[in-house]
Amino acid sequence: MFAKETYEKRRAALKKSVGSGLLLFFGNEECGMNYEDNTYHFRQDSTFLYFFGLNYAGLAAIIDIDEDKEIIFGNELTIDDIVWMGTQPTLREKAQLVGIHETRPAAELKKYIEQAVAKKQTVHYLPVYRAEHKVKLFDLLGIRSGTEQPSVPFIRGVVDLRNYKTAEEIVELQRACEVTADMHLCAMKVAQVGMKEYEVAAALEAVAQAAGCFVSFPTIATVNGQTLHNHYHGNTIKKGDMVLIDAGAETAMGYCGDMSSTVCAGKKFTSRQREILDLQVASHMAAVNALKPGVPFKDVYELSCRVICEGLKDMGLMKGDPAEAVAAGAHAMFFPCGLGHMMGLDVHDMENLGEVWVGYNGEPKSTQFGRKSLRLARPLEPGFVLTIEPGIYFIPELIDYWKSENRFADFICYDKLDAWRGFTGLRNEEDYLITETGAQLLGKRIPMSADEVEAIR
Amino acid sequence: MFAKETYEKRRAALKKSVGSGLLLFFGNEECGMNYEDNTYHFRQDSTFLYFFGLNYAGLAAIIDIDEDKEIIFGNELTIDDIVWMGTQPTLREKAQLVGIHETRPAAELKKYIEQAVAKKQTVHYLPVYRAEHKVKLFDLLGIRSGTEQPSVPFIRGVVDLRNYKTAEEIVELQRACEVTADMHLCAMKVAQVGMKEYEVAAALEAVAQAAGCFVSFPTIATVNGQTLHNHYHGNTIKKGDMVLIDAGAETAMGYCGDMSSTVCAGKKFTSRQREILDLQVASHMAAVNALKPGVPFKDVYELSCRVICEGLKDMGLMKGDPAEAVAAGAHAMFFPCGLGHMMGLDVHDMENLGEVWVGYNGEPKSTQFGRKSLRLARPLEPGFVLTIEPGIYFIPELIDYWKSENRFADFICYDKLDAWRGFTGLRNEEDYLITETGAQLLGKRIPMSADEVEAIR
Repeated sequence: MFAKETYEKRRAALKKSVGSGLLLFFGNEECGMNYEDNTYHFRQDSTFLYFFGLNYAGLAAIIDIDEDKEIIFGNELTIDDIVWMGTQPTLREKAQLVGIHETRPAAELKKYIEQAVAKKQTVHYLPVYRAEHKVKLFDLLGIRSGTEQPSVPFIRGVVDLRNYKTAEEIVELQRACEVTADMHLCAMKVAQVGMKEYEVAAALEAVAQAAGCFVSFPTIATVNGQTLHNHYHGNTIKKGDMVLIDAGAETAMGYCGDMSSTVCAGKKFTSRQREILDLQVASHMAAVNALKPGVPFKDVYELSCRVICEGLKDMGLMKGDPAEAVAAGAHAMFFPCGLGHMMGLDVHDMENLGEVWVGYNGEPKSTQFGRKSLRLARPLEPGFVLTIEPGIYFIPELIDYWKSENRFADFICYDKLDAWRGFTGLRNEEDYLITETGAQLLGKRIPMSADEVEAIR
Repeated sequence: MFAKETYEKRRAALKKSVGSGLLLFFGNEECGMNYEDNTYHFRQDSTFLYFFGLNYAGLAAIIDIDEDKEIIFGNELTIDDIVWMGTQPTLREKAQLVGIHETRPAAELKKYIEQAVAKKQTVHYLPVYRAEHKVKLFDLLGIRSGTEQPSVPFIRGVVDLRNYKTAEEIVELQRACEVTADMHLCAMKVAQVGMKEYEVAAALEAVAQAAGCFVSFPTIATVNGQTLHNHYHGNTIKKGDMVLIDAGAETAMGYCGDMSSTVCAGKKFTSRQREILDLQVASHMAAVNALKPGVPFKDVYELSCRVICEGLKDMGLMKGDPAEAVAAGAHAMFFPCGLGHMMGLDVHDMENLGEVWVGYNGEPKSTQFGRKSLRLARPLEPGFVLTIEPGIYFIPELIDYWKSENRFADFICYDKLDAWRGFTGLRNEEDYLITETGAQLLGKRIPMSADEVEAIR
């Protein structure tokens, strides 16, 4: 937890930004896996953490701007709770640590909200992402699931604060990224032909846990890197495979790291793998070198796509003008996802609040396949923390689908693609802080090029 | 997944047991940690797994007994799903693997339920344990959160099947218990003075993951064993500490193991620790030796409590007649939890369906502190799988609370207890299958007595 002044300052800035009304914050509840008391690891809502710092289940809070009140709602422990779960400070004591001087039992939230509604106060709430939030909104405000109308001023107020990381947040993010790098270094060393993917995942997740962290998202450790979010870990690593790792640590305070690496199953990459990896690294470094304040991230994305198309043209897999291919969206055959995203208390920072606010500053998003998956486009500013993660993928289902429609036949050499169907896919991913003059890598550098990876195998 | 005949047989037995109406099964959804797409490890609902075998999110099913229909509801993958998450068999193909020949889009469930309601069919549903189930019950049947009326015939039908483990289930449970034992053997070897508890947890969870399993419940790895469900892992292990581990593996099919062990931080237990551990083992073995069909588990619990009280009396911490102390509930100062619970597809098997059905066969539960936490009381039958886990705890908050009320002063020597406030607590836990003649240990035996534990340190 930061000093209470941090939370007080954040709340004051948010109040000023929204101006009036009542801001309603739901902390998260425990979630039972297969029955109520067999819970997943508790994860607090990140916005609640940002403004109220308390990492406990079952809390809610309001900032009543009109009445100048800040209240945390929650229940004290019973003797049964203490016997089963251990003792804790009282809610009052916890609240004081984050500069909140009024606490009330959980059941009183409903009364407070009803009075606010009766007084015609505007009750601002954020988008919901858990069913528990839907149940609460219905209970408190009679809002049925699917008919929520989250408050845009509230969203923008939160985004305009959380997007700019402060020095004390950078310290936490650096720590998350150091542990994240260690997870990758471990995986790059232990992965061997004959192992199961889940053995690699076990080793790298243990690095996070042994450092007092959690994983910031479900680990990808796969020989099928062409599937972008592949959480299956049951394959055996074979000779000639590549293993794509996408994994990150989350510190006890909730700050995240997120890196990817690609390792050869044996001692060496094949010449084909090396060729594609070289191209990924070229695209990656072009993007990194373009990072500085004022540059729209959309342009960095276009640049990274163009480098990939140029390389694929040199290899005979694409044709025509690379810039035109990118503008048309043909690159998405090989790079169907975005270049990067904001990172902070969430690994995709504030994804629940809407990319259009977080990454686009309210500007519309493209609906084009591939480009629509770009989570960040706005001009870069100091304090932004983001990932760089171009990838090159050969996705048999997508090849078949586009080929059947002869889509982008002016740019894609379908006759050559068949020989690449089984290549799978690869990427590297690093985390950067935008500074006043450029960008700074977070966490130690991990091997990325074919030479670097082979050197530690 | 078992052969489809297994699922067909189970459903046929359930239909016969409930007799009429429509049985509604909710599979589980993904649950976002801090935003919708950053999901926890997916855990299917165990009853859905038991009758429909499919380990995918977003499914529901009905058994319409009156119309003799079995239908799985769910959606097929889109090309975006395939690009991001990989390809899968179609829902129709998956359903056929478990003997279901009719599948429909998820949105059609509502129509089906509405028609059933219009025809005055009874719609049976089970108790809900996730907020997502509450949202669905409201959407499908207009039932508000907190007003659910789960079907007792449905619950009893499920419990009367799931309580009796078949040979193919025992194979899975054996496997879960073998991996669980390996997790404990690992922890017993790696725990060292100076380590953080989370380093021990990291090592033992990696054993589960590297065996292709998950953890079946949140790991306990604590120097504060007196807190029964202590999930905090931030303490440093000090000289003279004991480390209590309670952890288990869950196989890919969802079957669970659950064991506890207590290890000395250094090479040897102190004489006090040894004395209490000897007593725990005596209680533990008395319970194990009493296991056989026909014996009410309540009696096994009473026996294990009496052994503890006799030992504590010999040590001068209790007084009076041990049997009377147990009957009064005074033992709960040191042993405030139950002796064991059913185990299967859930680590506390079917806890969501109600202990009164699973463990008490409809008989009422005690409300006495300590005894009320006994999850299993009914006469044992072949096929039951259960844990044995007596423990001895010195809980400062409970000592202070009872002492302030002078509770059970005829049985508890409060003047002696102060010297034991900092002892913490310990337990061992094993998993047993009730056979025709007695009980069989599941998984390899792990060190339990002080001599055995010291021998592997």
